[in-house]
Amino acid sequence: MTLETRLQASPERIASAARRVMGRCEELARVTSMTGGIERVYLSPEHARVNRLAAEWMRELGMTTRQDAAGNQVGRLAPAGVPDAPALLMGSHLDTVPDAGRYDGIVGVLMALEVVRLVRHVDADGAVASPFPFALEVIAFSDEEGTRFGKALLGSSAVAGQWDESWWDLTDADGSTLRQAFREFGLDPARVGEAARRPDELVAYLEAHIEQGPELDRADQALAAVSSIASARRFQLIVEGEARHAGGTPYDMRRDALLGASEAALAVERICRGEHHVIGTVGQLEAFPGAVNVVPGEAHFSLDLRGEFDDTRDHTWTAIAAELDAIMGRRGLRWRSREVHSAPAVFCEPLLQDVVRAGIGAEAPTLFSRAGHDAMAIGAITGVGMLFLRNAEGISHHPAESVRGADVAAGIRALAESVLHLAAEPR
Amino acid sequence: MTLETRLQASPERIASAARRVMGRCEELARVTSMTGGIERVYLSPEHARVNRLAAEWMRELGMTTRQDAAGNQVGRLAPAGVPDAPALLMGSHLDTVPDAGRYDGIVGVLMALEVVRLVRHVDADGAVASPFPFALEVIAFSDEEGTRFGKALLGSSAVAGQWDESWWDLTDADGSTLRQAFREFGLDPARVGEAARRPDELVAYLEAHIEQGPELDRADQALAAVSSIASARRFQLIVEGEARHAGGTPYDMRRDALLGASEAALAVERICRGEHHVIGTVGQLEAFPGAVNVVPGEAHFSLDLRGEFDDTRDHTWTAIAAELDAIMGRRGLRWRSREVHSAPAVFCEPLLQDVVRAGIGAEAPTLFSRAGHDAMAIGAITGVGMLFLRNAEGISHHPAESVRGADVAAGIRALAESVLHLAAEPR
Repeated sequence: MTLETRLQASPERIASAARRVMGRCEELARVTSMTGGIERVYLSPEHARVNRLAAEWMRELGMTTRQDAAGNQVGRLAPAGVPDAPALLMGSHLDTVPDAGRYDGIVGVLMALEVVRLVRHVDADGAVASPFPFALEVIAFSDEEGTRFGKALLGSSAVAGQWDESWWDLTDADGSTLRQAFREFGLDPARVGEAARRPDELVAYLEAHIEQGPELDRADQALAAVSSIASARRFQLIVEGEARHAGGTPYDMRRDALLGASEAALAVERICRGEHHVIGTVGQLEAFPGAVNVVPGEAHFSLDLRGEFDDTRDHTWTAIAAELDAIMGRRGLRWRSREVHSAPAVFCEPLLQDVVRAGIGAEAPTLFSRAGHDAMAIGAITGVGMLFLRNAEGISHHPAESVRGADVAAGIRALAESVLHLAAEPR
Repeated sequence: MTLETRLQASPERIASAARRVMGRCEELARVTSMTGGIERVYLSPEHARVNRLAAEWMRELGMTTRQDAAGNQVGRLAPAGVPDAPALLMGSHLDTVPDAGRYDGIVGVLMALEVVRLVRHVDADGAVASPFPFALEVIAFSDEEGTRFGKALLGSSAVAGQWDESWWDLTDADGSTLRQAFREFGLDPARVGEAARRPDELVAYLEAHIEQGPELDRADQALAAVSSIASARRFQLIVEGEARHAGGTPYDMRRDALLGASEAALAVERICRGEHHVIGTVGQLEAFPGAVNVVPGEAHFSLDLRGEFDDTRDHTWTAIAAELDAIMGRRGLRWRSREVHSAPAVFCEPLLQDVVRAGIGAEAPTLFSRAGHDAMAIGAITGVGMLFLRNAEGISHHPAESVRGADVAAGIRALAESVLHLAAEPR
């Protein structure tokens, strides 16, 4: 039986769901702290506003809503008469990088809402319920990007019960600690543990997300199942030399921290290009004191390292660190690094990979995700499955990020089918 | 006749003058906008405070004082009965780079005050006057470093009558224009022309300054006469690529602006090392959007280029620009530059070089200055002479910048002697 016959999910109804998703992506894009672009960071006024919007949309579907102790927005629809049933969790995140696109994370939250709309049971009195033995929950994670505090997956880490007390002292660009930001948002740092879910409360986690890579676009495919999510490590690095007058200091007396950092950024590219399935990026770099006529005495930069497997990722970091020793040694510089994020490769559960592939249909491709996702954190407490949507040229984290309405419709249908397949599986 | 016999400038009196200079350097170091360091930029509250201090010290010597229309602090002591006599101008600047040392510019202003104290005539009633046919003026320039608005020598350019109307729209890091900053400081932009001095009002300009280079320290000499001041150009450069997701974008699809800028910074070093008497520095570099997980779509950096001669400097810029074309071409990036400062090499007047050498004594060395100085601007309206003081290891624009009290004493004596030699010269 197809979705249409079981749920009266006509092509028109799915197309209308996709249009609603696209329209809401535009609506959320207007909630931004940045003039002329999109930026929405953890625990900001914009975060509060999108949570309120998501909660409205959840209630419109008959879901009960709550904002959890880490600022994640959750909606729940239980089976009739079984209020405590374990839940199938679906969702993604609503926070963004600076000058972001409209779809990264966002489209997955909105698609999950449309799946609930398609599959929910509405009785003759208009009362709604999950038609399955499990509840349906939609979650909008509050921090996946890590833009504000440099630590990614804060929202889903809280749900996974993996909050680390050392994070409270992380600071944002204005010097506010995560602890202060929690309080200013109206959250109690002491209660963050209440956001954690127990494995027995959950059936599985399904996440739809744009690919953020070019593979589907190159293969002219709309959707893929995901096999695993990259292993990642992030570092903040500091190079120390000596600030000197730019005019009077000959090259043989300079210890220019910026030139050391520049060589380091190029070494990251060179080393990672030589590795299979490892990619490294220096996204931040700044020289200090940062005056036009002063040889930089210090330079700060970030390193984002991702690999399909933990061991190749770690091997690459070792090679980079050895090269940094050589570069800085030649230039009379010192360097140090602080690891601000580490996540092992997370493999999607084989059963959930099958379910997603069955949802997509016959020749569903399977991809490995180089980008990190909330599913990485949630994998610690339940099985995870992921569905990728094509995005043009793989452009993401950029205003030009795009997704086709037709692909969103196909994705909603595939995700709803996946839920039906999951409900039919013996768990 | 030595200075001692003519002026009763005993070694004790000169040592006491040097101690006062060193003490005042400490006092000025406390006027800062930066916690734990020294930073004092143009048209800031700290600028106003040091002007008030300098004015007090000028009045204490019997000088009449005024703050000119560009915020420079000026003190004047005319010959008895000749209030309009042309002036020998002496001084340097009181603004600093971020996290600066205590002596750059500052020591030259304070030494000029001590020279006035040594040479001025005090009559039986305690009335003071210049003992020469010319007035003695001390000037504390308000902006030499160009830290706030990216354009150096604003204070001395105003005095030289070379203010450029296009500068009014320069902005600082907070987006304030130079025009707004003038008004907030209490100055009238429309009246900046009143700071300009006519050539016939001036006899000469003498400036003492720390070397900001290692030559005197390496040669174990305290003082030098300066032959010429470097030709300089400054640029702000922008590299444009495309911001992309750090995980999902393979290297062959990246146009990483930061890697282009890193190659550019290293190319500046490589090209300038191959040139004689040209030095280039990238002091500022920043990546945008500046997120740990986004391939930089844009990078901004500065270039400070100095040469002994204008033509070698310009030839080097041409070579750098050609190399930038090649680098950015290979990486699919665009680049553009804006020239924010240009100054031709300024040669100290031969007579004033002789006067300074005579002031220093027998084996006075002569150096070329790679650092820019206020004398560069003032050279447009009168002859300039400069005296360099040794600073340890040539460390400048850094908290560790240092100068010896004994060298300051020798410098005060040499500058006072130079003034006597100048007064003895037919002009």
